[in-house]
Amino acid sequence: MRIALAQINSTLGSFESNAEKIIKYTADAKNRRCELVVFPEMALFGYRTSDLLERKSVVVQQLTQIGKIQKKIPEGITLIFGAVTKNPSKRGKPYFNSAVVLSKNSKPKTFNKQLLPTYDVFDEYRHLEHGETNKNIIKIKNKKILITVCEDIWAWEMPGTRNPYPANPLTNIKGKFDLVVNISASPFSLNKEKDRLFVTRQTAKQFKAPMVYVNTVGAQDELVFDGGSFALDKAGNIISQCVRFAEDLNVADFSERAGGFRSQKLEQTETIRQALVLGIKDFANKTGLSRAHLGLSGGIDSAVVACLAVDALGPSKVTTFALPGPYSATQSFDLAKKLAKEIHVELKEIEIRSAYETIVRQLENTFDSLEFGTVHENIQSRLRGLYLMAFTNYKNSLLLSTSNKDEYAAGYTTLYGDMCGGLAPIGDLLKGQVYDLANLYNKQTEIIPREIIERVPTAELRPNQKDQDTLPPYDDLDKAVRNLVQKKLNAKTKSEKWLLQALMKSEFKRWQAPPILRVTEHAFGRGRNFPIAHKAFF
Amino acid sequence: MRIALAQINSTLGSFESNAEKIIKYTADAKNRRCELVVFPEMALFGYRTSDLLERKSVVVQQLTQIGKIQKKIPEGITLIFGAVTKNPSKRGKPYFNSAVVLSKNSKPKTFNKQLLPTYDVFDEYRHLEHGETNKNIIKIKNKKILITVCEDIWAWEMPGTRNPYPANPLTNIKGKFDLVVNISASPFSLNKEKDRLFVTRQTAKQFKAPMVYVNTVGAQDELVFDGGSFALDKAGNIISQCVRFAEDLNVADFSERAGGFRSQKLEQTETIRQALVLGIKDFANKTGLSRAHLGLSGGIDSAVVACLAVDALGPSKVTTFALPGPYSATQSFDLAKKLAKEIHVELKEIEIRSAYETIVRQLENTFDSLEFGTVHENIQSRLRGLYLMAFTNYKNSLLLSTSNKDEYAAGYTTLYGDMCGGLAPIGDLLKGQVYDLANLYNKQTEIIPREIIERVPTAELRPNQKDQDTLPPYDDLDKAVRNLVQKKLNAKTKSEKWLLQALMKSEFKRWQAPPILRVTEHAFGRGRNFPIAHKAFF
Repeated sequence: MRIALAQINSTLGSFESNAEKIIKYTADAKNRRCELVVFPEMALFGYRTSDLLERKSVVVQQLTQIGKIQKKIPEGITLIFGAVTKNPSKRGKPYFNSAVVLSKNSKPKTFNKQLLPTYDVFDEYRHLEHGETNKNIIKIKNKKILITVCEDIWAWEMPGTRNPYPANPLTNIKGKFDLVVNISASPFSLNKEKDRLFVTRQTAKQFKAPMVYVNTVGAQDELVFDGGSFALDKAGNIISQCVRFAEDLNVADFSERAGGFRSQKLEQTETIRQALVLGIKDFANKTGLSRAHLGLSGGIDSAVVACLAVDALGPSKVTTFALPGPYSATQSFDLAKKLAKEIHVELKEIEIRSAYETIVRQLENTFDSLEFGTVHENIQSRLRGLYLMAFTNYKNSLLLSTSNKDEYAAGYTTLYGDMCGGLAPIGDLLKGQVYDLANLYNKQTEIIPREIIERVPTAELRPNQKDQDTLPPYDDLDKAVRNLVQKKLNAKTKSEKWLLQALMKSEFKRWQAPPILRVTEHAFGRGRNFPIAHKAFF
Repeated sequence: MRIALAQINSTLGSFESNAEKIIKYTADAKNRRCELVVFPEMALFGYRTSDLLERKSVVVQQLTQIGKIQKKIPEGITLIFGAVTKNPSKRGKPYFNSAVVLSKNSKPKTFNKQLLPTYDVFDEYRHLEHGETNKNIIKIKNKKILITVCEDIWAWEMPGTRNPYPANPLTNIKGKFDLVVNISASPFSLNKEKDRLFVTRQTAKQFKAPMVYVNTVGAQDELVFDGGSFALDKAGNIISQCVRFAEDLNVADFSERAGGFRSQKLEQTETIRQALVLGIKDFANKTGLSRAHLGLSGGIDSAVVACLAVDALGPSKVTTFALPGPYSATQSFDLAKKLAKEIHVELKEIEIRSAYETIVRQLENTFDSLEFGTVHENIQSRLRGLYLMAFTNYKNSLLLSTSNKDEYAAGYTTLYGDMCGGLAPIGDLLKGQVYDLANLYNKQTEIIPREIIERVPTAELRPNQKDQDTLPPYDDLDKAVRNLVQKKLNAKTKSEKWLLQALMKSEFKRWQAPPILRVTEHAFGRGRNFPIAHKAFF
């Protein structure tokens, strides 16, 4: 049997264009002599569905597309794609997360996801009901196929991890299968590929059957889906693999034991780069914004974000701003200029000093005994935010915030200041990962001026300020953020104890953060739902 | 049997002080000759637990308090209180939401919540496992008591509402009971009392037994818990009722068929006022902030927020700012002054014009052909935010945002401008409800100058601006917001269709909104998880 792995980039809620894509890929699959074409989870609806599911009319619109697809597909090919379907029961959550099986002349069948991820960035149990049966089985051309949706194959015991489901539904399924299909919307994070291979191999082993795993690709708000769909033979060998971070149609032919194999060994930093570029690009595309802008401080964070933005949108669509203030070094401006020239983006300059001085003078008259401190620092940062947001209003351009994960964790970023933006591309990167990205950009030629990489990090909000006057050394801070935030461990080292206090004091800032592109298993954003008003210590 | 309803205000994560409160209330209950004292759901941990549960050490700290409580309680009284307990299984979610039953000399018993609300503001299934049994039964002094936790009694069919649970666990419980206990953390919203009475009466009827319903009181971030605990006889008559919006210890004696009955018929607007005052007060208390401030525009929204802040914190802890701009009427400043005087709060004045002019001049030099428009309007709003946040940094004072629900829905509020703040007290109020509150404040004497209530709403960001130049008439807008946001209906009227477009365009703003005190069944905030990048129309 020849099977097409149709790794498409759906747009959430764009049912017509998603349906058209499904029809087009089906035609392509048919042309490539496939009898089955498998699309990702929620290929028709888009993922994450979240509270769009509280609008009945939205689901109705999506459902009507299923009939339209059926009318337009050729004979002799079966489709499996993900969609939202209605729960016929009068009780329980109103919808299912389903795999729809469609062919020209037979009634559509649906199979419902049994395990609904409800942790971190996943909120499926808000609106979706559990599928109940273990009868997710179809026959195509006399082949018996078991259909699973994403999480359904993730309830295997994994060393060192607590499984959030009381039981593994796969262990109750009896019988022999010719194929197991899994349709997924599994967001990118570092190390995720390894886990996917583990669970698919366990599943192939359990049923002594080959597997087709089709993952979605594209980005939606915080989440980047990396695709990387693949087929395994029953021994667990990859016989076909799609590209990552792009749409792909690939063929797996188990009888010939051959399929398109596109080697995907990417270096880790390059993986992050591709994820963030796709994240920016799809956020712009899917919100209808075509331009982006950001402030260039002459520091490494904004330099890297500028490079990512250019990769995503092209240099003509990116505007940069130098916004020197009373404590900015001349070098900072020179470096920003040099970088802008190197990456061919426009650089506009606005001096914040005069507005700053006006405001400080007024506050000195209004507040008693105002000494130089946070008030003054934050005015500078917020003025920059104000100028940058003026350009958003002027050009309908997406402001990119340049704060990194260390800064978010420590609260070392100004609410309504550097935190301003429609998207925070590097908000889930440790400082060390930002350096890695800078070095990656400079691998061939010096795109980011070497001085930007080498100079000592500074916010330049007071005379001779260094980040390390306030923060622990970045190496320690990186480790602390990884341990406390990403791995959820307890604070042990001095830096970790420092960070813990800082984390707790700054939750109110992160509550108001822009969407942060997620590249780790645990980022700030909707996947981390911490309270503000509490007294817990951990 | 004499039962104490101990309606306490726990602080999330403050295990020692919550335990002390439980001990103190138990002693009081004993003094009042009670044999059983019932505390709210999560009385020991505090509610909403959310991602505090991802920190193992936090739960350990809470669990050690159970032993400490047991050591300090007198003989002859049994406690029922809510706490987080560990799931002994190696699989599934790691914790339970439990009712702990404690007395001096016997082993603590725990009963686990079966229905875990995971919708709107509730996220219990993120970290909590379902209780499995229907054996939540204890015997105290030969009385057989059925114990339920909050949602466990909410799976009755309710007319016009879809029940999110496939089955009602109560209908499977056989046997006769002398009492049904429900411990709750049921957040306030208008009309919620009626629903509570419905589900408790259904439960009393099902088991032909009296009921004790103990709800928590106090606020945590967006949520306000109104208490209002009560006892029903088996016919469903209230025989004992606690106050609302304050701690209370009340006695229900079923054998004497008598209890403390505190009449709670509050007028709807007064209920809202009490909810918001408690919301502000607890947010300040529980985050450790003692002061608040806000900008007084001379309009009705800020006037009402100022009154609420004074009710919550006292006039000496509230600072107001008049921040007149180039398009502010003199009347606006005069009215702000008049109001500040009336409610005895300090008013500081800072003119935003000079900073505004500096910035506009710079932008005219930097942007090509900048015509007067949103850029100019938002600079004014953001400058006000900047001055107000300077006071936050200066005094560690809580900035209150004054945007209302109509404004949030329509996106008629400036991100990083009027949206600045640590808390948005009236962000879930329709404009009409803001007027109702103003009229309530003026019931006895004219606290809010009549002109503030009577003048035509304006943002004063351009010459002769009126809100109604941009928005539909407020009466229509109120209806549209109620229908589309709160009731989740489809857009039908012209104003609703207008609002739908506006809602969809402004999701990015609300993603970054401060916590909004919730008073309806569906507010903006964490209870409404909408995507930004999507193409759905509803």
